[in-house]
Amino acid sequence: MSLQKSCIVAGTGPGNGAALARAFSKEGFHIVLLARSSDFIQSLASELGNATAITCDLSDEASIAQAAKRIESECPPVEVLIFNAGGASTFRPGTLLNVSPSDLLKTIAARTTGPLSLSQHILPGMVTRKKGSIFFTGATASTRGSKNFALLAIPSFSTKALAESMAREFMPKGIHVSHIVLDGSLESECAREWKPNAGPDDFMQPKDVAASYVMLHNQPRSTWTFELVLRPSVEEW
Amino acid sequence: MSLQKSCIVAGTGPGNGAALARAFSKEGFHIVLLARSSDFIQSLASELGNATAITCDLSDEASIAQAAKRIESECPPVEVLIFNAGGASTFRPGTLLNVSPSDLLKTIAARTTGPLSLSQHILPGMVTRKKGSIFFTGATASTRGSKNFALLAIPSFSTKALAESMAREFMPKGIHVSHIVLDGSLESECAREWKPNAGPDDFMQPKDVAASYVMLHNQPRSTWTFELVLRPSVEEW
Amino acid sequence: MSLQKSCIVAGTGPGNGAALARAFSKEGFHIVLLARSSDFIQSLASELGNATAITCDLSDEASIAQAAKRIESECPPVEVLIFNAGGASTFRPGTLLNVSPSDLLKTIAARTTGPLSLSQHILPGMVTRKKGSIFFTGATASTRGSKNFALLAIPSFSTKALAESMAREFMPKGIHVSHIVLDGSLESECAREWKPNAGPDDFMQPKDVAASYVMLHNQPRSTWTFELVLRPSVEEW
Amino acid sequence: MSLQKSCIVAGTGPGNGAALARAFSKEGFHIVLLARSSDFIQSLASELGNATAITCDLSDEASIAQAAKRIESECPPVEVLIFNAGGASTFRPGTLLNVSPSDLLKTIAARTTGPLSLSQHILPGMVTRKKGSIFFTGATASTRGSKNFALLAIPSFSTKALAESMAREFMPKGIHVSHIVLDGSLESECAREWKPNAGPDDFMQPKDVAASYVMLHNQPRSTWTFELVLRPSVEEW
Repeated sequence: MSLQKSCIVAGTGPGNGAALARAFSKEGFHIVLLARSSDFIQSLASELGNATAITCDLSDEASIAQAAKRIESECPPVEVLIFNAGGASTFRPGTLLNVSPSDLLKTIAARTTGPLSLSQHILPGMVTRKKGSIFFTGATASTRGSKNFALLAIPSFSTKALAESMAREFMPKGIHVSHIVLDGSLESECAREWKPNAGPDDFMQPKDVAASYVMLHNQPRSTWTFELVLRPSVEEW
Repeated sequence: MSLQKSCIVAGTGPGNGAALARAFSKEGFHIVLLARSSDFIQSLASELGNATAITCDLSDEASIAQAAKRIESECPPVEVLIFNAGGASTFRPGTLLNVSPSDLLKTIAARTTGPLSLSQHILPGMVTRKKGSIFFTGATASTRGSKNFALLAIPSFSTKALAESMAREFMPKGIHVSHIVLDGSLESECAREWKPNAGPDDFMQPKDVAASYVMLHNQPRSTWTFELVLRPSVEEW
Repeated sequence: MSLQKSCIVAGTGPGNGAALARAFSKEGFHIVLLARSSDFIQSLASELGNATAITCDLSDEASIAQAAKRIESECPPVEVLIFNAGGASTFRPGTLLNVSPSDLLKTIAARTTGPLSLSQHILPGMVTRKKGSIFFTGATASTRGSKNFALLAIPSFSTKALAESMAREFMPKGIHVSHIVLDGSLESECAREWKPNAGPDDFMQPKDVAASYVMLHNQPRSTWTFELVLRPSVEEW
Repeated sequence: MSLQKSCIVAGTGPGNGAALARAFSKEGFHIVLLARSSDFIQSLASELGNATAITCDLSDEASIAQAAKRIESECPPVEVLIFNAGGASTFRPGTLLNVSPSDLLKTIAARTTGPLSLSQHILPGMVTRKKGSIFFTGATASTRGSKNFALLAIPSFSTKALAESMAREFMPKGIHVSHIVLDGSLESECAREWKPNAGPDDFMQPKDVAASYVMLHNQPRSTWTFELVLRPSVEEW
């Protein structure tokens, strides 16, 4: 079967990224999986069937250019582009005095200038076809610079700035740009270890999160949402 | 046919209110239409079939108490309560010096203390059944006090404060509270007269707006949205 | 001695209101004290010397009109108008289900439509003289509708909407409108009883708060601030 | 005369930077001027007298480390640290498609990771002395990602995230961290060329802006302001 449209999931881990890939696969998209290491995305691509796994470092422009070239030559036109590089799962809180400026800059690159670069490859085609969605995954730290969270907040704020600038320029050209703020913890083995007393209502289910991205892609253009905040019913905010 | 659940649309005019009523009717709800004058809601109730039209002035506690009593005795349990009293359609911009404080207070009552009062009748049942949604329609003026828009902004800010306070108290009890911000013009005859050069992309379609409320009601509780901003793709913001 | 300019402090209690009166008195203003009961403002007026105490209920338009008339005939032109009616000191948190809609509406009137009404008396003279400041005291609840704080948040949001609308209309006409957000507890006997373990850094000093209002009134018009948030250094936010 | 305290102005051009240097010099501070090129800061240091000019590239950690070393050995203890690297004056609006990812990353480094690095050198001494202020100059683009402004918005958002994270961690330790948002144009030859029809009220005066930083440094710790927005009275917002 040859599918007519691709969905790129940039930053695909076993949690949200995999759920997004499965959800858009069910909607009939060819899935392009991008991640720095190949093992997980290779096996996920096999599971999905219509899928291409490409190792790509979003903090490296040359790596992005190479990935973009492969996507253009091997995959159907890109209709959905998702930047899911969160890094929230490996983040540990700590004083600003111990944040390494060069590590921080690398994270910012992977969350901001890398996504900008990949978007510059993909956007022109979307504009020509007058159809497409670009989605950025954000977090609580996207709008709040909390104590001990600088390493998460600074890249998240800059991702939001990129998403907003892109939305204001490209929504009138028919491209739906959204910033999805996950204001809570995604269910995962790791999350349950951190919160051993958490109940079933305390976590966001990756499949529910992924369904929200599909919903956004299907919003009629008379009622588009730029920023969508999702949180568990019991979350304090 | 006897339906098992009601949806109240408080503030039902021919635009958004009617679209909401039709959308939830298709989802199998008995519809309760509340408005200050009876003509439109009577004819809409006839069109819908499973529906009850009740004249009610949301700025008057006694009128609300009476409506609540009728709903309790005549209708299935309320699962969705929508406050759609916008007033945006009849609003005209003007200097703060000409805003009548008593008119303004009456509008605030209809948008804030009235909805609070009706919610106090409905919420306990929802909490007992651990199921229900309360939705408030907002506007651009909900987050921005623009020049010449005080008469719209002040009630809209207070509606938002009510919605937020309610969400933080009742979401953990299983009631989904949302504030839907319509950041653009709804298509209507009146809107087209105001913007004679507008194209088809310039307006929000009431049926698309209504579909968003249905989507919110169906969100799984692991990923609830409190504030949903909707705007046409070409809207400047 | 006859002073050339008045400062109205509407909502004068022994805390912030008295500190504001004393601060502007030192700056050479005739002080007009407005409050619902006369005892405290009478004695404060005696202490200050150049001051007029007027009992006035800000939730009652007739009472406001009478006060405005007295001010116009007895006092120097109004250069500063401060709405300090907080009510935060008597507020007690509680469920939305127990908030009385009519009490809430009265509070909204005192915080929003009353200040609008008094401003409508004062603004035209300020605009003619191209000089004046109107200041609104807000709180944490001005931008956040917290659980159990609806009775504080709803009037505070509407005050903010009034202030913003007024600022956007009248700042270009030379009137400085500001919304001062007190994001912490003012030192007072009552506050120390509530927080018996609080240290000296935990409270805002009324005289420091008042100095900020004087600073705002003296800002050159090339660099005006609309919203000024003040909080103790150790406050969490 | 030997002064007892230093004020660093990082990013010193002839506009806001020079005004800040002059204002804190008058307050009795030894001034440390940092900029990428030496000509202007050398001549400004001569004018001020008690001042040290150091060429420093804030996007380069080694350059920062060298500057920090010189400051520590040659200058009085740092009490005020100002990051004024705006870049707004040379910014030109343009489509996101033409923004160079590597140029953008360099700007982010100069606005975020560089200031973090210099702060890591300065903060420990401030904390030990329990005294100090760190100020970040922001712009309209700090809270709004406008169409064609990505190159300004993305670094500005990340600066704000750094400032907020730093404020929440270090204010309770006695260090006043502020983010000053200049929501308008600073008067300059260049600005007048851009807006030839602008009147005297349309621009912010650098000396007024600088006075606001001095005011912030002098705020008593019972009433600290984190974010201070300044705009001309006639500015639309």
